[in-house]
Amino acid sequence: MRDVCVVGVGITKYGKHDLQARELMTQASQAAIQSAGIDPQRISSGFFGNAFGVAEKQGHLGPLIMTALGLESKPATVVETACASGGTAFHHGYREVAGGFSDAVLIGGVERVSMLDTLTATTYFAYGSDFTYEGGTGCSFPGLYATMARSYFQKYGATERDLANVAIKNHDNAIHNPVAHLQKRITMEDVLGSMKVADPLKLYDACPFSDGAAAAILCDEKTAKELTDTPIYIEASERAGSIAALHDRPDLTSLPGAIAAGQAALKRAKVTVDDVDLFEVHDCFTIAEIAASEDLGLFKKGTGAKAATDGLTRIGGKHVINPSGGLKAKGHPVGATGAGQIVEVYEQLLGEAGGRQVDGAMRGLTHNVGATGGTVVVNVLARRN
Amino acid sequence: MRDVCVVGVGITKYGKHDLQARELMTQASQAAIQSAGIDPQRISSGFFGNAFGVAEKQGHLGPLIMTALGLESKPATVVETACASGGTAFHHGYREVAGGFSDAVLIGGVERVSMLDTLTATTYFAYGSDFTYEGGTGCSFPGLYATMARSYFQKYGATERDLANVAIKNHDNAIHNPVAHLQKRITMEDVLGSMKVADPLKLYDACPFSDGAAAAILCDEKTAKELTDTPIYIEASERAGSIAALHDRPDLTSLPGAIAAGQAALKRAKVTVDDVDLFEVHDCFTIAEIAASEDLGLFKKGTGAKAATDGLTRIGGKHVINPSGGLKAKGHPVGATGAGQIVEVYEQLLGEAGGRQVDGAMRGLTHNVGATGGTVVVNVLARRN
Repeated sequence: MRDVCVVGVGITKYGKHDLQARELMTQASQAAIQSAGIDPQRISSGFFGNAFGVAEKQGHLGPLIMTALGLESKPATVVETACASGGTAFHHGYREVAGGFSDAVLIGGVERVSMLDTLTATTYFAYGSDFTYEGGTGCSFPGLYATMARSYFQKYGATERDLANVAIKNHDNAIHNPVAHLQKRITMEDVLGSMKVADPLKLYDACPFSDGAAAAILCDEKTAKELTDTPIYIEASERAGSIAALHDRPDLTSLPGAIAAGQAALKRAKVTVDDVDLFEVHDCFTIAEIAASEDLGLFKKGTGAKAATDGLTRIGGKHVINPSGGLKAKGHPVGATGAGQIVEVYEQLLGEAGGRQVDGAMRGLTHNVGATGGTVVVNVLARRN
Repeated sequence: MRDVCVVGVGITKYGKHDLQARELMTQASQAAIQSAGIDPQRISSGFFGNAFGVAEKQGHLGPLIMTALGLESKPATVVETACASGGTAFHHGYREVAGGFSDAVLIGGVERVSMLDTLTATTYFAYGSDFTYEGGTGCSFPGLYATMARSYFQKYGATERDLANVAIKNHDNAIHNPVAHLQKRITMEDVLGSMKVADPLKLYDACPFSDGAAAAILCDEKTAKELTDTPIYIEASERAGSIAALHDRPDLTSLPGAIAAGQAALKRAKVTVDDVDLFEVHDCFTIAEIAASEDLGLFKKGTGAKAATDGLTRIGGKHVINPSGGLKAKGHPVGATGAGQIVEVYEQLLGEAGGRQVDGAMRGLTHNVGATGGTVVVNVLARRN
């Protein structure tokens, strides 16, 4: 297996766009190609995460994007694992290069949902759950994550204020992220006073519906060194699943797939969480970030909420989580999210993250979740010089 | 890169099903596991082709299927490249094993569209085209392939009778295929007298809308030899793209991606078409089979129609095409089709194809097309003893 590096990234603003998904993905891809300084003809294939293309009346995005890039003879695959689609695209692109099949690939993800009303969008999102037994019976994602939050409160004595601290921190970080969807500070009062979505989760516990795209160029080490003096190495890209339906799991407060993928990734990278300078985790709801911080082993089970309230996950804290603003404030264009996490880690490791920079960051981890954990992808990236 | 083998296959009947896609895919997967005689816990991941899951209000099929199989911790990816989704799932599963990442994977594909009316189904299918510029302006797939047929007629002097001979042959073959959607002989009069769909294509020039699923177990050679004395080797799995929109291509009578993928696959397998005993090609419309027979190099450009009329593609002919009945008569459950082609070749190479058996078949090729060729996957499989 060959070493694989990220040599360039591109991302659109997250938020509301009038462009189609194919156009957003093309823009992010062009930016990634430019960032890498690679002759695009050296790219042998594309991997794109997208979950709701059909909502926009367009499937088969691969050849549309490759054609727009002038790479019409190069094949491209759309991968779908609900909200983990972008991370899954990265994972398969990584293996394409690591396995020696290609020297350079384009990976990315895109979503466009802003043309849908909130009810329709929530319904489409619910198709990522076990829809027959979850969404189809009225339990959409806010309800499922609210169930996790309620269970967490009961088992560990956490409160709505703990959850709110996650939202406040991520909004604080996103102020410094020019691509973030929500760029405004929020207070404890704002969060606690916001509309109930699914008790105990409120509007400010939830990520927004975002449009957007993110992309990266992955190369084998030799090609990477031709292109840059500072390639970002992919030390691990691991995945695991969980029982699809939340109600069939023995514990509602953690994601078995996140524990498994996290442990596998750290083992593959031969590091511990103390060797990781920042964590981009899948905080579709505030409770999800707390669960992630425990599933990945940053904090002991049941202590993640207190860690958030104590500020341990802020920039400068013990374990920095979501300096980008996370899904909560950077935004959550479903298929793009996992790829966007890679963009953030890449920029952090190159010291290009501006006001949200984690000083001296040399290694970052991304954690991308599909639905309530049916799919989890964990990646470890590092700078070596 | 390691040798990879197919060691077991499973398939549902193609046609109309009341089961959900997740159930169909689980059934085919269980059959493949049983066929392989493998402990399912040895399977490390799944790759499933599916194009219109959202039409059934269910995305993120991977963990649903893996959970149903008792493999909930194993990750699975849905891949979408329109009608080539099943072939693409096979391709990525092959590379997963060839690259040394897994010793055994489950691949497959599934579609369920029979709950949609014909207009809705045709519209969903059209989402696989460049919908803004093709389907969205009224040119659905029958129209696009009719344009190809008209262009072929003008350039090469072929006729509707030549096309009809493709349909008649494929229906003759499907009589002997117990999973085929359409199991009835048809005559020249039947075809020529059938309803015009998009001139010059008639109803009997078109494949049906089918539900169905197909699956296969792929292993590295060592694992394969533990499981069977007759592993089927994957000699090549290659892909290529074409300009997405038909109207932007210089020639409407062939698919550049099919030519490229076909040549790459034969080169990788180190064989010529004369070394291949049967070809399962993507005949979504009769003209598509003729184009495929030329793109793959079985017949010179412009002579494929005559070859079909002369019976050269029948079982026992010079180049046997679609002994299964093809998409035309076996059926076309979109995401399943490419995986179903693998099932046919596997059964043929083991001599288990009953009344449609190609005598002494030792090597088969599959050709799976997304849309009008934006994605093309060509695989070569062989038996070595």
